[in-house]
This record gives sequence, structure tokens and C-alpha cells, in this order.
Amino acid sequence: MYRPKLTSASRPLTFEVEALNERGEALPTPIAGEHPLTLYLDKREIVTLMTLGQAPEALTIGYLRNQRLVGSIGEIAAVQVDWETDSVAVTTRKRVKGGDRKLRARLKKRTVTTGCGQGTVFGDLMEEIDSIRLRDDVRLSEETLYALLDAVRRHETIYKSAGAVHGCALAAGATILYFIEDVGRHNAVDAIAGRMWLDHVDGSDKVFYTTGRLTSEMVIKAAQMQIPFLVSRSGLTQMGHQIASQVGITMLGRAVNKHYLLFTGTHRFVKTVMPTMIA
Amino acid sequence: MYRPKLTSASRPLTFEVEALNERGEALPTPIAGEHPLTLYLDKREIVTLMTLGQAPEALTIGYLRNQRLVGSIGEIAAVQVDWETDSVAVTTRKRVKGGDRKLRARLKKRTVTTGCGQGTVFGDLMEEIDSIRLRDDVRLSEETLYALLDAVRRHETIYKSAGAVHGCALAAGATILYFIEDVGRHNAVDAIAGRMWLDHVDGSDKVFYTTGRLTSEMVIKAAQMQIPFLVSRSGLTQMGHQIASQVGITMLGRAVNKHYLLFTGTHRFVKTVMPTMIA
Repeated sequence: MYRPKLTSASRPLTFEVEALNERGEALPTPIAGEHPLTLYLDKREIVTLMTLGQAPEALTIGYLRNQRLVGSIGEIAAVQVDWETDSVAVTTRKRVKGGDRKLRARLKKRTVTTGCGQGTVFGDLMEEIDSIRLRDDVRLSEETLYALLDAVRRHETIYKSAGAVHGCALAAGATILYFIEDVGRHNAVDAIAGRMWLDHVDGSDKVFYTTGRLTSEMVIKAAQMQIPFLVSRSGLTQMGHQIASQVGITMLGRAVNKHYLLFTGTHRFVKTVMPTMIA
Repeated sequence: MYRPKLTSASRPLTFEVEALNERGEALPTPIAGEHPLTLYLDKREIVTLMTLGQAPEALTIGYLRNQRLVGSIGEIAAVQVDWETDSVAVTTRKRVKGGDRKLRARLKKRTVTTGCGQGTVFGDLMEEIDSIRLRDDVRLSEETLYALLDAVRRHETIYKSAGAVHGCALAAGATILYFIEDVGRHNAVDAIAGRMWLDHVDGSDKVFYTTGRLTSEMVIKAAQMQIPFLVSRSGLTQMGHQIASQVGITMLGRAVNKHYLLFTGTHRFVKTVMPTMIA
């Protein structure tokens, strides 16, 4: 199983500062880390990501994956994070698949990058969506959903201690495989995508959970990872809904405790049969 | 007072879809709009913004302002939104200040755009921060803060009906001047920046309120607008805190009802003197 050469350079995730509350008390208050990480791909500067720094190597790989700057994990030779210079250097295996020439073409096409409601791979992504076919022979039962929501609730998170981050998880049934938090929800998704590539994990029978909103980009990214189930604690946008309908992903919003709203792809969701009450 | 030629093309802000809840009931559910808006500056494609569409002209102007692609409102001749093609065409007054040549230089410098934790004007912004001096002769009292939080609470919002959006407000004391919501919190900030330019509003004695987290970019943008007070319902990141300390902005987080945490710039905040209790 191929794996590029990697650093393992996660950062301290919380810091403590002092704040005055409404009673005039000086409180030590934990806050989430945020660090600039400038990404160089074969020595070309690509972007500066602002990140919590929990999984910088996976974030880098997932960013390159989701921006379609790298076609497979096999194209990446090394990912080296250096917090002295707040940078990550990615080296590609240039002789693989026309390497450098292909990369130049990809960089040229991409005029601007995606972000929170500020996209652009957007046009290309919408074209790709039409060709995505998600597995239809997988199911998620209501019991499994509730068990997953419970596992998420019990998971120790930066959010609980410091707030100001979004979390994403990849689950097999109710079992959390990865749980990654970051200051931007797109970073958290990208880091999961990176981990999946690194570990050669297939998304086609998995559940993607996010604390963030289900916007167009979130739905597109889940679908691109071939994940048939998308679950969020939050709400959704009209375009998230439209794309979810189009691609047929099973999408649930407002999923907390024993509540949820099932929006699309209802055929993959198995509702628990309530025992009949005998009067 | 100069004002460019503008369309007035806001979109329907909420849509209704059907969802199945945990009791198996089919519920009509309002969701927030989300539309791609591709920005052309003098016929050059710059970015596709995903937006709620509440204030697309102000968003466009504020985006160009905050990305430093346009130096003043006087440089903009027209902003024309066309939802038939999901695009907005901005025409600059080319003879103003070397116009086109200057723009080319700016576009060249900016390799990638900002977003939710995916920035890059970043490097430039940090340089700018050093030169910002916020007014030190303005104060915010605890009573005014509470009155503002109450005004925000009573404001009718998309968030209350559909969720999945962030809101930003510009206030003079406890009076809300603008309240703009969008699917990305950066869009909401940019739209406020656009409205301020359009109406020639000076930020140096105003309060900026946001439902979103106080990350580095949020603090930088408030400081660039010369706004000395930054208030959020949410938490903050370590870098947001660091930049706020550096620039001396008065920053409050977790501000809801009669609670808040005062982090930086404490000298501009006037705490209510509690009446002495006589035993």
C-alpha cells in the first residue's frame, strides 16, 4: 500500500487567554489555535490555509485532492510541514502520468480557489456531479444513526473546550473512523479526504458527519468521495438541497440526539418500525 | 456624493422543501437560498461567490474592497447583477488613477482569494495591520452593548426561519445601521463593507457585530474598516486574539443576552458601576 513520505507535525490545539466577564471577573479562557500554513506544490506557492493544525499533512493532501490539483495519492512523493516557516512543501513524483505538465495545466485552469461561499472550482465541480453514481445497495438504519450521533456527542472535542471550530467525521455505521476539527469547515472536510487517500479508504459505504451547514460545496465534496450518507447537526441551503437531490445522496440535517430531518435519498434510510401499541 | 450605477437585484431569501422527521411526518421546511454569482471586473472573471443574494451589489463592491482590487468607491462606474446568467459585471472608471494598469498589477499579485480559512491576501493583510491606528477617544458602555444585543435578538432574520446563514451588523451605539446575512460569514462582512462605501459611512466610531467566529480574517477586516469595536455571539481563535491585541481593537466574544467575555482593547469599554449594596 503506497504511502508518501510524511511529517507528523500537529500543533497544540488550544491556548489560554484571559477575558473579563460581565461580573468583572478575569477568567482564563481556552481558545482554538489558528495558524497560517502556506502550501507549496513542487515549489510553487498555491494557497495559505488558516488551520487549527490538528492534521496538517492530511489537510494538505485533501486540499490538493479536492481542488483537483493532484489526481491520486500515488502522484505525491512527500508532504513536509515546517512550522518554523508556517509552510508545507509537497513534492510530486514527476514521472508519474506526465506530472509537471499536467499540474501546470490544472493550475492554469483554476483561476481562484474555493472557500467558504467563495468558490470557483465550482463550474468544474458541477460538471463532475453529473457523472457521479453513488451506491444504491447500502442502507442506514435509524438505530445506527442514533448510535452515531451518540458517539459524536461523547467524542472529546476542541469545540467543547474552546469553540470556534467545526468538526467532521467519517464513520462506518456508528463507528467513527476519523474525527477532525478545524477553524474552517472546508479544512475539516479536506483533511478527512486526505486521510481517506492516505489510508486507501473507500467512501462508498460510509457516513459523512459534519457539525457545519450543508452548502453546495459540502454536498459536492461528499459526493466526490462517493459517500452515500451525509449527516449534519446544522441546516442546509437551497443549493445544497438541489445538488443532493440531483446526485441522490441520502442527506439528513438537524441531526441531534433523537431528532433529524431526512431531506433526500430517502430510499437508503431505514426507519425503525415502532412496536404496535395494544390498547 | 458619488454613487456608481447599480442594479437592485436581491433574490428570494428562503425556499421551502419537504423533509421527513423522526416521527415520520412530512414537514414543509424553510431553507436559505444559495446562488452562484460570478464576478466580472472589466470583463475579467475574478471569482464565483456562493451567496444568499440579499445584497449582491454591496457584496460585490465589498469583495473588491476587501480584496484590494479596487481602491475607492470612486473607481467603480457600475455594478450590474444579472441572475439570468448568475453573474455581476463591474465596470471601473478607467481613467481614474491609472485604472486598468493598476488593476492588472493587483490581479497579478493576488494569486488566490480568501475564504473560510483559505486565505491569501493574507500576507499583504498582515503587513497592512501594522499601519492601522484605531480611534482611542471612543467608548462602548455595558448598557449600550446590552441594548445592541437586544436589538440584534429582536431583529427579524433568515437565520431564525431557515438557519444555515451567518449575520453581520454595523451599529452606531445600540442602533443597527445594516444587518446582512449570507451563507458564508465572509460574504456578510464584505457586503457590510460594500454598503459602507456606497453610503460613505465612516467606521471609526461604529460597532461591528457578527454571529460568526472571530478568526484572524474577521479581525483584520474590521480593523481595515477602522472599526474600534468588534462583538461576536461566538468564540474566537488564537490568531484572532493575537491580531486583536496587536491592533488594539476592543473585542468581545460570547456576547448573548447579559453575558460577554471582553478579550482585548479593554480601555474603550465602560463597565456599569454596580450600586453598592448596603447591608
